[in-house]
Amino acid sequence: MNEALSAALQRASRHQHRFEARFAAYFDSLTDPAGGTFEIPPHGAFPARALDLVRDMSLRGGKRLRVVLLHEAASLVTEEDVPGLDDAAISIELLQTHGLIHDDIIDDAPVRRGAPSTYYAYRRTFPDRPDTALAMALLAGDLAAFLSLRVLLTGGLPADRALALAAVHADTAAATVTGQMIDLERDFHPDPGTEFLHAVTEFKSTRYSVLAPLRMGLLAAGTDHAPYDAELRRYATALGIANQIHDDWLDLFGDPAALGKPTGSDIRSGRRSYAVTALRSVCDDAERTLLDGASGDPGCDEETLDRIRSIARAHGVDRRLRDDAHEHARRAGAQAATWRERWRPEAVAFFEHMPVWSVTRDR
Amino acid sequence: MNEALSAALQRASRHQHRFEARFAAYFDSLTDPAGGTFEIPPHGAFPARALDLVRDMSLRGGKRLRVVLLHEAASLVTEEDVPGLDDAAISIELLQTHGLIHDDIIDDAPVRRGAPSTYYAYRRTFPDRPDTALAMALLAGDLAAFLSLRVLLTGGLPADRALALAAVHADTAAATVTGQMIDLERDFHPDPGTEFLHAVTEFKSTRYSVLAPLRMGLLAAGTDHAPYDAELRRYATALGIANQIHDDWLDLFGDPAALGKPTGSDIRSGRRSYAVTALRSVCDDAERTLLDGASGDPGCDEETLDRIRSIARAHGVDRRLRDDAHEHARRAGAQAATWRERWRPEAVAFFEHMPVWSVTRDR
Repeated sequence: MNEALSAALQRASRHQHRFEARFAAYFDSLTDPAGGTFEIPPHGAFPARALDLVRDMSLRGGKRLRVVLLHEAASLVTEEDVPGLDDAAISIELLQTHGLIHDDIIDDAPVRRGAPSTYYAYRRTFPDRPDTALAMALLAGDLAAFLSLRVLLTGGLPADRALALAAVHADTAAATVTGQMIDLERDFHPDPGTEFLHAVTEFKSTRYSVLAPLRMGLLAAGTDHAPYDAELRRYATALGIANQIHDDWLDLFGDPAALGKPTGSDIRSGRRSYAVTALRSVCDDAERTLLDGASGDPGCDEETLDRIRSIARAHGVDRRLRDDAHEHARRAGAQAATWRERWRPEAVAFFEHMPVWSVTRDR
Repeated sequence: MNEALSAALQRASRHQHRFEARFAAYFDSLTDPAGGTFEIPPHGAFPARALDLVRDMSLRGGKRLRVVLLHEAASLVTEEDVPGLDDAAISIELLQTHGLIHDDIIDDAPVRRGAPSTYYAYRRTFPDRPDTALAMALLAGDLAAFLSLRVLLTGGLPADRALALAAVHADTAAATVTGQMIDLERDFHPDPGTEFLHAVTEFKSTRYSVLAPLRMGLLAAGTDHAPYDAELRRYATALGIANQIHDDWLDLFGDPAALGKPTGSDIRSGRRSYAVTALRSVCDDAERTLLDGASGDPGCDEETLDRIRSIARAHGVDRRLRDDAHEHARRAGAQAATWRERWRPEAVAFFEHMPVWSVTRDR
């Protein structure tokens, strides 16, 4: 591994570790009996339970790539500690929690991050009242959304900085919602086409997972992102597509043991992923009939999936996806390389080498 | 009618009228083909349709009492035009739209403001896909929530003022979500008790419908609300309770013809309203059995409702509710009367006389 990348990944691991403690402390501070910052109604137990579930979902958070991106973006322009970066990180992760809670209602998903989804936690609490379970999960997601903005607005940052961060957040959050909408719409199309898939990737994930951390990291460090926004967007878009193609490749061709979860979920749930769409565009009528029959069938068996994989490999879809992911990652890296003349080299190295690294992991 | 109140109500009517045009112009500006301020994905039709439904729900808005409160609150401290008041009004009304859209999912309500709820508009669009209808309504509500904050953050106000307004908004929105939670929780209690009902009123409606407009009106006019916050809260709490008791009274004893909708909905939907709770606390076992049998029965007939009304009247519940509403309204007015020495008399007169007027309307 590239030495600069290796150093950056070590920094990333420290950011992740520190963030977990900071995020837990944030939740403690909300409801601290000696003066919590969040006022809960003096009667009723539902709000406290909802806050607990928001906390639980938030704290079983995985890789925190968004937090790492935020810190590295700030490191592009300063080596100092940056006040506001923790608030920005908490805010983005709470926005993610909001999205997950509502997504799991939309997908009727029982499990998230290795434990019950918020919706199913409530289904367990109200076994005879599915309407109440749905209502409470919906409201818990709303709570996460408003807390997510609130942490930026009440954190004591200078007003212009807090306002700029919050404006990026609100724009990002609204864009992400439209991304979730076209994500649903995509699956109504037999052949949505690559540009449609790219738009879904861009709006549903890239905006909040890559672009917002870049913008907010720079803003928190005192650098207006606006003059660089076109470059940041090109970087984010390329990295986002690379990662989504890689994820979709993994979902069909990955190793379930290495991934820790079964593959084929995109086919079983009828998602028009990059892999499904690529295969559909090259296969013959008989193959397409097989694929369309499996698509959206939750009970589709391993044997059928294996046949689909073989067909995909025979058409070179496996290799084409890997090449596409690599090419988009390469483009992101090339964009970042142009930042060397302007920004701090250690952080630039992270943005330069991380994309290709990220689409070759888990192979 | 009191002359000052009459003048204030005329001002209110002008605010309402002006606001409707301003609100429509806001939606136009989002998606103006010549340079809308809101970026919609370049593919897919679902986001534009969601925005249309958010717009439709927002523009069939009723009395706009929150908008009037905002303007009158600003008028407490200035007679000048206040920049930011329109943004604040749009923001609060969008928060209301968000709440209505999600509420109608929670209540499975087909109609809102005299037309299909957003959820049922989608049920019509996707007659065979109730999951998609639910998903899209949920996301449309999320979109309204983020737009609601965004309008305060991107409106070009001075940073400290925009930040203060947005902080009030985020606090208010989070509090309102907890209010919706205890509103659900309340109906699990056979006898929630008056304090529980007051907490529901405070968090579910008063915070965003009364207190936030007061705080934001002062803030927009350049007056920090913090030194007066205890008084504003007392006023808002008393007015909120007065109005909720009045609404609950109307729902049982009101004139369906004057109201334009059937009465008895609180009983039919099993809501532990002030009226239901008051009746339950005084009636005998046989009467309670009748009431509890009707409670939560959507098919409860008019005859049963009439028997319940007679029982309530026999126990003096009718009069007690009216007295309670009047007493809380009187307290709110008395609080506002203390502002005469500090703030502009025309606006103070509105806050002083409006509460009692509002609980005697529709009688």
